[in-house]
Amino acid sequence: MVSLKGMTDRHDGRAPDQTREVRITRNWLDHAEGSVLVEFGRTRVLCAASFTEGVPRWLKGKGTGWVTAEYAMLPRATNTRSDRESVKGRIGGRTHEISRLIGRSLRAVIDTKALGENTIVLDCDVLQADGGTRTAAITGAYVALVDAIEDARSRGLIAARAQPLTGSVAACSVGVVAGRAVLDLDYPEDSTAETDMNVVMTGDGRFIEVQGTAEGRPFDRDLLDQLLDLAAKGCADLTTRQQAALAAATDGGEVA
Amino acid sequence: MVSLKGMTDRHDGRAPDQTREVRITRNWLDHAEGSVLVEFGRTRVLCAASFTEGVPRWLKGKGTGWVTAEYAMLPRATNTRSDRESVKGRIGGRTHEISRLIGRSLRAVIDTKALGENTIVLDCDVLQADGGTRTAAITGAYVALVDAIEDARSRGLIAARAQPLTGSVAACSVGVVAGRAVLDLDYPEDSTAETDMNVVMTGDGRFIEVQGTAEGRPFDRDLLDQLLDLAAKGCADLTTRQQAALAAATDGGEVA
Amino acid sequence: MVSLKGMTDRHDGRAPDQTREVRITRNWLDHAEGSVLVEFGRTRVLCAASFTEGVPRWLKGKGTGWVTAEYAMLPRATNTRSDRESVKGRIGGRTHEISRLIGRSLRAVIDTKALGENTIVLDCDVLQADGGTRTAAITGAYVALVDAIEDARSRGLIAARAQPLTGSVAACSVGVVAGRAVLDLDYPEDSTAETDMNVVMTGDGRFIEVQGTAEGRPFDRDLLDQLLDLAAKGCADLTTRQQAALAAATDGGEVA
Amino acid sequence: MVSLKGMTDRHDGRAPDQTREVRITRNWLDHAEGSVLVEFGRTRVLCAASFTEGVPRWLKGKGTGWVTAEYAMLPRATNTRSDRESVKGRIGGRTHEISRLIGRSLRAVIDTKALGENTIVLDCDVLQADGGTRTAAITGAYVALVDAIEDARSRGLIAARAQPLTGSVAACSVGVVAGRAVLDLDYPEDSTAETDMNVVMTGDGRFIEVQGTAEGRPFDRDLLDQLLDLAAKGCADLTTRQQAALAAATDGGEVA
Amino acid sequence: MVSLKGMTDRHDGRAPDQTREVRITRNWLDHAEGSVLVEFGRTRVLCAASFTEGVPRWLKGKGTGWVTAEYAMLPRATNTRSDRESVKGRIGGRTHEISRLIGRSLRAVIDTKALGENTIVLDCDVLQADGGTRTAAITGAYVALVDAIEDARSRGLIAARAQPLTGSVAACSVGVVAGRAVLDLDYPEDSTAETDMNVVMTGDGRFIEVQGTAEGRPFDRDLLDQLLDLAAKGCADLTTRQQAALAAATDGGEVA
Amino acid sequence: MVSLKGMTDRHDGRAPDQTREVRITRNWLDHAEGSVLVEFGRTRVLCAASFTEGVPRWLKGKGTGWVTAEYAMLPRATNTRSDRESVKGRIGGRTHEISRLIGRSLRAVIDTKALGENTIVLDCDVLQADGGTRTAAITGAYVALVDAIEDARSRGLIAARAQPLTGSVAACSVGVVAGRAVLDLDYPEDSTAETDMNVVMTGDGRFIEVQGTAEGRPFDRDLLDQLLDLAAKGCADLTTRQQAALAAATDGGEVA
Repeated sequence: MVSLKGMTDRHDGRAPDQTREVRITRNWLDHAEGSVLVEFGRTRVLCAASFTEGVPRWLKGKGTGWVTAEYAMLPRATNTRSDRESVKGRIGGRTHEISRLIGRSLRAVIDTKALGENTIVLDCDVLQADGGTRTAAITGAYVALVDAIEDARSRGLIAARAQPLTGSVAACSVGVVAGRAVLDLDYPEDSTAETDMNVVMTGDGRFIEVQGTAEGRPFDRDLLDQLLDLAAKGCADLTTRQQAALAAATDGGEVA
Repeated sequence: MVSLKGMTDRHDGRAPDQTREVRITRNWLDHAEGSVLVEFGRTRVLCAASFTEGVPRWLKGKGTGWVTAEYAMLPRATNTRSDRESVKGRIGGRTHEISRLIGRSLRAVIDTKALGENTIVLDCDVLQADGGTRTAAITGAYVALVDAIEDARSRGLIAARAQPLTGSVAACSVGVVAGRAVLDLDYPEDSTAETDMNVVMTGDGRFIEVQGTAEGRPFDRDLLDQLLDLAAKGCADLTTRQQAALAAATDGGEVA
Repeated sequence: MVSLKGMTDRHDGRAPDQTREVRITRNWLDHAEGSVLVEFGRTRVLCAASFTEGVPRWLKGKGTGWVTAEYAMLPRATNTRSDRESVKGRIGGRTHEISRLIGRSLRAVIDTKALGENTIVLDCDVLQADGGTRTAAITGAYVALVDAIEDARSRGLIAARAQPLTGSVAACSVGVVAGRAVLDLDYPEDSTAETDMNVVMTGDGRFIEVQGTAEGRPFDRDLLDQLLDLAAKGCADLTTRQQAALAAATDGGEVA
Repeated sequence: MVSLKGMTDRHDGRAPDQTREVRITRNWLDHAEGSVLVEFGRTRVLCAASFTEGVPRWLKGKGTGWVTAEYAMLPRATNTRSDRESVKGRIGGRTHEISRLIGRSLRAVIDTKALGENTIVLDCDVLQADGGTRTAAITGAYVALVDAIEDARSRGLIAARAQPLTGSVAACSVGVVAGRAVLDLDYPEDSTAETDMNVVMTGDGRFIEVQGTAEGRPFDRDLLDQLLDLAAKGCADLTTRQQAALAAATDGGEVA
Repeated sequence: MVSLKGMTDRHDGRAPDQTREVRITRNWLDHAEGSVLVEFGRTRVLCAASFTEGVPRWLKGKGTGWVTAEYAMLPRATNTRSDRESVKGRIGGRTHEISRLIGRSLRAVIDTKALGENTIVLDCDVLQADGGTRTAAITGAYVALVDAIEDARSRGLIAARAQPLTGSVAACSVGVVAGRAVLDLDYPEDSTAETDMNVVMTGDGRFIEVQGTAEGRPFDRDLLDQLLDLAAKGCADLTTRQQAALAAATDGGEVA
Repeated sequence: MVSLKGMTDRHDGRAPDQTREVRITRNWLDHAEGSVLVEFGRTRVLCAASFTEGVPRWLKGKGTGWVTAEYAMLPRATNTRSDRESVKGRIGGRTHEISRLIGRSLRAVIDTKALGENTIVLDCDVLQADGGTRTAAITGAYVALVDAIEDARSRGLIAARAQPLTGSVAACSVGVVAGRAVLDLDYPEDSTAETDMNVVMTGDGRFIEVQGTAEGRPFDRDLLDQLLDLAAKGCADLTTRQQAALAAATDGGEVA
């Protein structure tokens, strides 16, 4: 059985159920309706929310809005340089998969009727990658989304009393490293993990996405339960961080 | 709380924990080293396993083999025709995502050392789609994979005693339809499901992949537990089907 | 001079002017307006006819319909696996060429005025290739086209008395193998043929397409005449098969 | 029955069995090993033959050479401008089809063993299109091919006595215009033709390719025979032109 | 300091401030509204101007026209064959850059209001390259543009008194070869130049574009001034050639 | 004549010959061999230098290294969101052009022999755009390049005494705004400029690139001279900033 205690420390000294240092810097960009530089330790993702009036063609005239996301990595976000997808002329499977995950996660807390026929695109660009880029992206994008909605409200683009947001969203990774279930894996942990799970939850503790993968040995139900417990704890911690960031003055304040 | 009982029937009369009729036809193709036409009700997927000596460049000289998969849908597999990805010139995110899932699922039961420097590609082409194409693909591809390995063994391409397979794999979908947790959703169910989960398990009941998504309302831990129970039952049933198909004579016999 | 008689048998025992066993299974798919699994021996092509109201932009408002076709091969249709064109991101010349041939052949028996502003797309996907895939595709696609038109008529999408079809179409290959003109070459014959010709004819014996290619030695007029005679015989035989298939009850009956 | 006589003249006054004015200008380019500007009336195609040592990877070490062709049209070769295929990012089916036809036609008179492990690429770029671009391209490319081979011989890249060419090639179009079989259709004729056929023949009157298409009504065997007769006459005339051009001094002389 | 005099001759005997022989052949094509074959020595560019009514979507309803350009090279324009960009499926940076330069240069002398909602596309296809292809293209495209505008005027597509042209444009290259500033570099000079500059000027001697690049050593202000002087001389000479060509009768006359 | 004085202020109060506030933050990334966040006012570009052993295939065995650059913009760097080039599947002309400019500029101060068979790629990603992104990219990339070379030296990948850098590089924009020549245009200025010029210079005041474009009226030699003077002043100022940044301790210090 996998245990949370009594073993050697994680390589960076964290407790098994401890996230890395999380920093959420709002309004990192001047042009975007909402923007956040989110950092999970050395992982650094720039989340920009772009609000535009109108919806894609297939939604026109239905009175509902649309929220979508695009995820990408800068070529030197990683330890060794990767070729640009724009140069290769095609987007890889991983990029597609994560973009879709982020979009679904945010739409889970959006009332598209209340949004009206408006579109919000969340661009999540990984400036530096050290594990957990998709969970950092979701966690940061939620904050940028809140700011973009408030910006639209202040400009009269959505009704003063409309409540497009039905809740908050945060995401964390959990996994089994060196035989122990741990929270928020960094790259050295992630690359040796036997099981890897990304969990997206609402602020009130319900699940939006659960994606668990046996990298090595298949896992049993007990371990799955342990990982889900750990993820619930992690998402709750991240929700607290998001709330603190959103409570701060909006002039670029940073919350560590 | 979501209940398995006491509600109106599913639209096709199945019990909540009942799969559709499953048919596994081996050797549906003459050329492929392994091939299976797998049917989950009206969902029909052709799985072809191609065994080739040698491995991709990045694996050369490491003494290990490679198993990968490609998933695609014929344009008229669905109710209305879709454009071909070859004509559009790019593969969509959903296709990428499912191809990767199938590949990971099969690799979870492969000992790549025992495979030697050989590659097996699983092509899973959906001839007709009625929900659950990815789970049918994984379930059928496993059988084609077994046949391809035995074919290679019979031709002396892998050692007589090598055991590249460390277990079996099957996959099923579960979800919440009309407030009730059900197994193996067909398209009418899938398109109205609130929660949708695909689970890939080994024949001995451990998890390889768990992918749950709240399509509508986020779901709580209780419901997640119910869905996991249902999935375990479904994968066990599918494992039985696979074993029956593999026990039959290999001359194109069909097992309903 | 090339002779039809007095030489050793073809490798599968057929007479020089004999087609392989032809099977035409209608309604192989549940969703498509017309669908046929056509088999010329081991060559197996799934032809799906999709009827949609409206026409491409360049035809709008002219009161005429449109019929087009797309041909493709599954990666493991052939003896060794081919890369997917969707993965390569571009369609090859051969695929383009055959798609265009099928479309032209079917349009030759279509009165687009009688079709009204409707479009029928014929998807011809080769599930298994053993020579003659383009001729099988044309022969099967014609049957699927008939079914799609009748389906549209039964749903009131084309007028009860409209006659969009002006005739029937079938196609066969002929070639010179081992110095002898033969009909309906399978892959072993095709790959050693000196001359290869595909002929598309109407049910009343007129030509729609004649495409002859000297693979080895250029051929003279006498041989060309012999090949045309053989093709006329083959197309007439296939026309008979099509008529029998269309005369059968439409509930998935198979005609061997 | 279609007749060659007794009807009104062709729009440009030609006899039914008369080609347009044919001009073959050798050495139109300074860099290419062989180059020809070929004109069939207003159709103008620049054919450049590039000789390079070595062969594509799949031919290496077999001691045989390779001849291939690429056909393309300048955007304003036609009456209205077409988009560039380079800008669209993909080659159209027609371009593919014609490139393959030209390559096959030339390879039909090449002894690849005698060529040695060398490659000749024929680039046929249509500067102005007025019908018959593919037949002009084949007819001109043959002359450029001869010059490239002689150039290679003079530089010692192929043996002094090697005979890579086993014959000559020319091509012409024939068709039924206004109920009459005519030779070498220009664009106004081609766009109204009921039947259109392209025929590639050797200098000694054998067939390399026969491609006939019923644009309108299907055609019968009698008409097919008439068209083949006309094509044989046309290809013989073009062979004479090629011989005259090749007999002239090689310093850019032009033969009308 | 770099000197214009007292050194050995250029490899082709030209004076430092002398262009190659310039030939401008108007109406080289039959279909295009304006067309020019421009030759700077062995560099040969076909410039076709296509006039169409209407403008791109983003300009609609603004009452202004549009002029744009596309530059490309035939595969065997150069000393060794280059792959086609259409076959590679993407346009290279150099092609993009030069197309944009030509378009900007021509727009600098266009009054888009006077042009009305019409579009002129300049296709500049390099048939043979020997240095200076972009400057030849600009110089020739201007003449084709003049002809296309006059053609449109004669057909009543632009007003009789409209003056869409506000001046003329010509372009030349200058550079430092073997320590000396020279005008209109051919390929042997260009490939060894230390500094390379392309200058686009109006007929009245003002600058539209100045693009100077240190290929080897960075250059100082003195040298830059010398090069600009030389370019002014060259553009003036080319302007004279353009005027002569435009003054000639428009029936395909050639001006050397 | 255009004047530097006596007119109304620039919209942000700068003197005509004054750059925006320039900030150069070294080591902004943890993984890259050299990295700089460079800011010209609100323009913010992340420059990452990746050092790898070996060179592209076409340079192998020549004993020389290679320096190249790729420029890109995040989708929401600009005022309104742009589509990603990776999603569009092709790189635009502007991106290509700027990437090539940055690469050439840096290679102008590199002795590729001294670099040995090593490659340095400079990725310049615009996080926020407010005019002058290419000049900021060049100015910042130079600093990242210096750091990458020193890093390689410290790891013994280049010889201790090798001097791959032959000088320094900086770049600035100049232009005519409201009739006045000004330095370092921000976006509001750039979008209304009549003439726009980008100048790349070495630290000792020589030119690497001069790219001037008349956006509106063509410009005369006097104005060109004024702009060149202004650019020389701007590049000198930027050189001073670069030297200060490089003189600071390398632990992420920021120089304003």
